Amino acid sequence: MQKHGGDIYQREYRLDFSVNVNPLGTPERVIEAACEGIRHSDRYPDVECRKLRAKLARAEEVSEEQIVFGNGAADLIFALALANRPKNVLLPAPTFAEYEQAVRMAGGQVTYYELSETEGFLLDERIIGHITTDVDMLFLCNPNNPTGLPLKKALVLRILEQCAACGTLLVVDECFNEFLDAPEEYSVKEYIDRFPGLFILKAFTKVYAMAGLRLGYGFSSDSELLARMGEMRQPWNVSIPAQYAGVAALDETEYVSRCKTMLAGERDYLKAGLKHMGFTVYDSQANYIFFRAWPGLYQAMAEQGILIRDCGNYVGLSEGYFRIAVKTHEENTELIHTMEETVGKWKRQ
Amino acid sequence: MQKHGGDIYQREYRLDFSVNVNPLGTPERVIEAACEGIRHSDRYPDVECRKLRAKLARAEEVSEEQIVFGNGAADLIFALALANRPKNVLLPAPTFAEYEQAVRMAGGQVTYYELSETEGFLLDERIIGHITTDVDMLFLCNPNNPTGLPLKKALVLRILEQCAACGTLLVVDECFNEFLDAPEEYSVKEYIDRFPGLFILKAFTKVYAMAGLRLGYGFSSDSELLARMGEMRQPWNVSIPAQYAGVAALDETEYVSRCKTMLAGERDYLKAGLKHMGFTVYDSQANYIFFRAWPGLYQAMAEQGILIRDCGNYVGLSEGYFRIAVKTHEENTELIHTMEETVGKWKRQ
Repeated sequence: MQKHGGDIYQREYRLDFSVNVNPLGTPERVIEAACEGIRHSDRYPDVECRKLRAKLARAEEVSEEQIVFGNGAADLIFALALANRPKNVLLPAPTFAEYEQAVRMAGGQVTYYELSETEGFLLDERIIGHITTDVDMLFLCNPNNPTGLPLKKALVLRILEQCAACGTLLVVDECFNEFLDAPEEYSVKEYIDRFPGLFILKAFTKVYAMAGLRLGYGFSSDSELLARMGEMRQPWNVSIPAQYAGVAALDETEYVSRCKTMLAGERDYLKAGLKHMGFTVYDSQANYIFFRAWPGLYQAMAEQGILIRDCGNYVGLSEGYFRIAVKTHEENTELIHTMEETVGKWKRQ
Repeated sequence: MQKHGGDIYQREYRLDFSVNVNPLGTPERVIEAACEGIRHSDRYPDVECRKLRAKLARAEEVSEEQIVFGNGAADLIFALALANRPKNVLLPAPTFAEYEQAVRMAGGQVTYYELSETEGFLLDERIIGHITTDVDMLFLCNPNNPTGLPLKKALVLRILEQCAACGTLLVVDECFNEFLDAPEEYSVKEYIDRFPGLFILKAFTKVYAMAGLRLGYGFSSDSELLARMGEMRQPWNVSIPAQYAGVAALDETEYVSRCKTMLAGERDYLKAGLKHMGFTVYDSQANYIFFRAWPGLYQAMAEQGILIRDCGNYVGLSEGYFRIAVKTHEENTELIHTMEETVGKWKRQ
């Protein structure tokens, strides 16, 4: 079992369902732009990412000075932890594992707010009672990873108000927001001016399938926080090909909407297939699906050359939980057929 | 004046002498390999950099497990500071500014060992008396930046022995070592097995002119230190194009020797030209030249479209010190001619 999804380097897999990037692959114009960037890479990168910053500010409707860039969103999680050095951090469980690693690295301790299996791992307003003045930071992944369940804006706003009252920094990770059917019903980006204690985390990684290029970003109206984050890292953090790729990616609105149309149908297809095999399937709205099967499924699929994400190592989960990416129809069909055969063999044993 | 060299993004310059990379530019095969890497960048990077690690271990004659990779060498400086959290750090002055920034970020304080102008900013064995059990870490840049002056292996070894006796971690930054006429007379790489308290810092940035791609590395026989450094950062730190570029770069031995042949002649040409203008020129052995002129030179050259590195903001230096890269003969000639005109005008004023 791999600690993270996507470790396809130790061994070759026919299909990789462990990583949640856009199934359409990197847009051709993004690839070309990144290659053009390589041709200019005898220079150091622009430490301010000026071109990318100007274009992203327009696309995201935020001010240029409210944006911070990172070597992938994960880099910003570490920078946030270092810039704040929180003593006590509240994390829902299960959620993305890097929050905890970053907090511990910066000397902080983590308290988990465990989401209940019987309630489908859904976060609700009861978390508000756990946000006190002792909590320095709270990470909310929306939609959550690995469950794919999104939180409505109204609930996040109530959490945000409690955080503001308690002096708690709220980091909302919206890296998968664009994959939702109606992203604007979930994003709290519009509140960054009103709440300096709100940090929104985003990435090009997932939406434009450029995980190997590393380009993440964040928004906050707290200029001191952004400056402190900058001091925590080298100035040349974002490579030239990543900056060029990001500029080109922002033109790919048609590619993103094509992906979303495809996703909606394929998500339903995969959920139906998994349910048909008798697995418990959670109601993901993202580009990945979380389900409960039996502990040996990871290994059985790996033997068939298909990599899925074993979620047994998430805090708050036990063996037998898995996550698969939603990919193209051909790939999804192959996954379902292979899994059906595997399940059939297992039942006959 | 820019904080770092190479900030060519705020304004266009005809010639950039502020950045010290290989004047031959990025090798074509490295560019092609990086573009090939972009085509595979819908995946996450190999967190272990396996292909690059195996090839680099052979090229550098170290064990695979003694290598750590970073998003440029600067990333490793920050990781070293975080992994060690040194209280007291000894730094020669002047030297590369990122050491201090990283140490302060990690909560440490810096004591400067000031190199004397009257002795040509040359480090000698007297620094050994300043290495005590109170010193947690010492950074030595060899050859030094900005002076280009190298330390012979025998002296570094004596410093290393004192560090070992005092429990001081010695970081030797050999990022410019390959540009020296006889690199093996200066590198202390061969001592990593004998001294677990030795860390060697290197980069692809300078030698292969790939500063925009970000790829640095280091060696140490202290496996716990390397593991701690890994915990300080996200696992996907080194991009796919950087890993592909690094693998290709290691085949470019002919390119490196061609660069060195050119450098030797051009370094002499530039030194002679600067001396002829009456400037104090230090005896750099690297791919850049350090000299003392008058404070207005940076601005006067910038007005002619030529960017040089103003070293007035280095600790241990005052206004009037500059660094220029050694570039191609055509570019160097243009620099010298433009500078001669500028100096002529200035004298007539």
